[in-house]
Amino acid sequence: MRLYIVGFGPGGTEYMTMEARHAIEDSDVVVGYTVYVDLLREYFQEKKFYTTPMKKEKERCQWAIDTAVSGKRVALVCSGDSGVYGMAGLVLELLEEEGQKLEIYVVAGVTAACSGGAVLGAPLNHDFAVISLSDLLTPWELIEKRLECAAMGDFCICLYNPSSRKRQDYLQRACKIVERYKSENTVCGYVKNIGREQQEKKILTLSQLKSEQVDMFTTVFIGNSQTIQKGEWMVTPRGYQL
Amino acid sequence: MRLYIVGFGPGGTEYMTMEARHAIEDSDVVVGYTVYVDLLREYFQEKKFYTTPMKKEKERCQWAIDTAVSGKRVALVCSGDSGVYGMAGLVLELLEEEGQKLEIYVVAGVTAACSGGAVLGAPLNHDFAVISLSDLLTPWELIEKRLECAAMGDFCICLYNPSSRKRQDYLQRACKIVERYKSENTVCGYVKNIGREQQEKKILTLSQLKSEQVDMFTTVFIGNSQTIQKGEWMVTPRGYQL
Repeated sequence: MRLYIVGFGPGGTEYMTMEARHAIEDSDVVVGYTVYVDLLREYFQEKKFYTTPMKKEKERCQWAIDTAVSGKRVALVCSGDSGVYGMAGLVLELLEEEGQKLEIYVVAGVTAACSGGAVLGAPLNHDFAVISLSDLLTPWELIEKRLECAAMGDFCICLYNPSSRKRQDYLQRACKIVERYKSENTVCGYVKNIGREQQEKKILTLSQLKSEQVDMFTTVFIGNSQTIQKGEWMVTPRGYQL
Repeated sequence: MRLYIVGFGPGGTEYMTMEARHAIEDSDVVVGYTVYVDLLREYFQEKKFYTTPMKKEKERCQWAIDTAVSGKRVALVCSGDSGVYGMAGLVLELLEEEGQKLEIYVVAGVTAACSGGAVLGAPLNHDFAVISLSDLLTPWELIEKRLECAAMGDFCICLYNPSSRKRQDYLQRACKIVERYKSENTVCGYVKNIGREQQEKKILTLSQLKSEQVDMFTTVFIGNSQTIQKGEWMVTPRGYQL
């Protein structure tokens, strides 16, 4: 009768909190998206795993609830944080009366804004906005409005899901909106495969970012008007007098 | 010649990543703000610690750099994430030529938006903005502008440093700006002492939040137009059809 919704960070156990590790160890079964569960198998070889493919999030969460209600201890795992475009929201929405009896633990993890930020330096070291460019569940008009508002407020911006096979030009469209308010020389960066093999990072200007091709495993960072590049680092000053 | 800038999450080692733990274990000396270092002493009793008080951030970072340049392994620790209002930015800004020879590792941690979010449920499960209400280093006019833009874009909003002895009415001022764009019934919440003894949480409406007195150890969450309260949880739906 226990359900953990666990954010395990960007990849290997090194980036997982002890709380996340303990939650997985305490569970009878671990359920998650196929690709992410494969990242965990090697570290928890004794565990039973259950996977569902992408776009089957509702079925996955319902399975986790039903299995926990049936008496098992279940860890539903998400990459990054469980509450940032994660499964915690959907599980809590789906809980019906019987689910109310469950012991629910939402276990936070290191989201890509932070893990990717650390790879680049400190791009989000002042007020920032996190925006997903995926329009699977959100109307594109609302995404555009948020990009505009975030740029208008001179926020640092972190973009999740910047691209996919069907959304090849979304990053370009986002940059075009942002550059109405931010200089084309704004310092930007991105990190691909954060914390995994073949991790890559790049620092570039907003105008360069506009013509960059990134994939769905990439997290994009757009600086504010104060953000600088210093050597290999992208840094947003907090405002200390140096 | 090695400097780790380590985010250790909200408090105890349970919320720390393995990477953060290993960085501290690998260091000859651990330096940080007095209050946070005291949280760590009990877990790393063998370590040498060096502390500096609040408002001595620049001295602390410079000490960490100088000590690392002198040949020691240093862990500069920050609560939450090292790159979200943390010390990673300041260290990278302060690096002069000699510092360029250092091996620098920015180690991400679970920031309060995520650790506090998990306590409340999933308040930031859609696009969100993180804004600090501290005007020590940022002009209040810019904070106001960002509050306005975030509210206009219907972002979920997470407020850091919502109050202090000298800024008793800042949360109220922020709510007044936000309610120009968000309904007074918007679901809000806050968490005090995240992950520590005497952790407290509360869910309330925006109009109630406006007259709530919170302290500097509190993180505040303001929902978007879709955010709901479900039982004891604050949940922002991502948009799945249920």
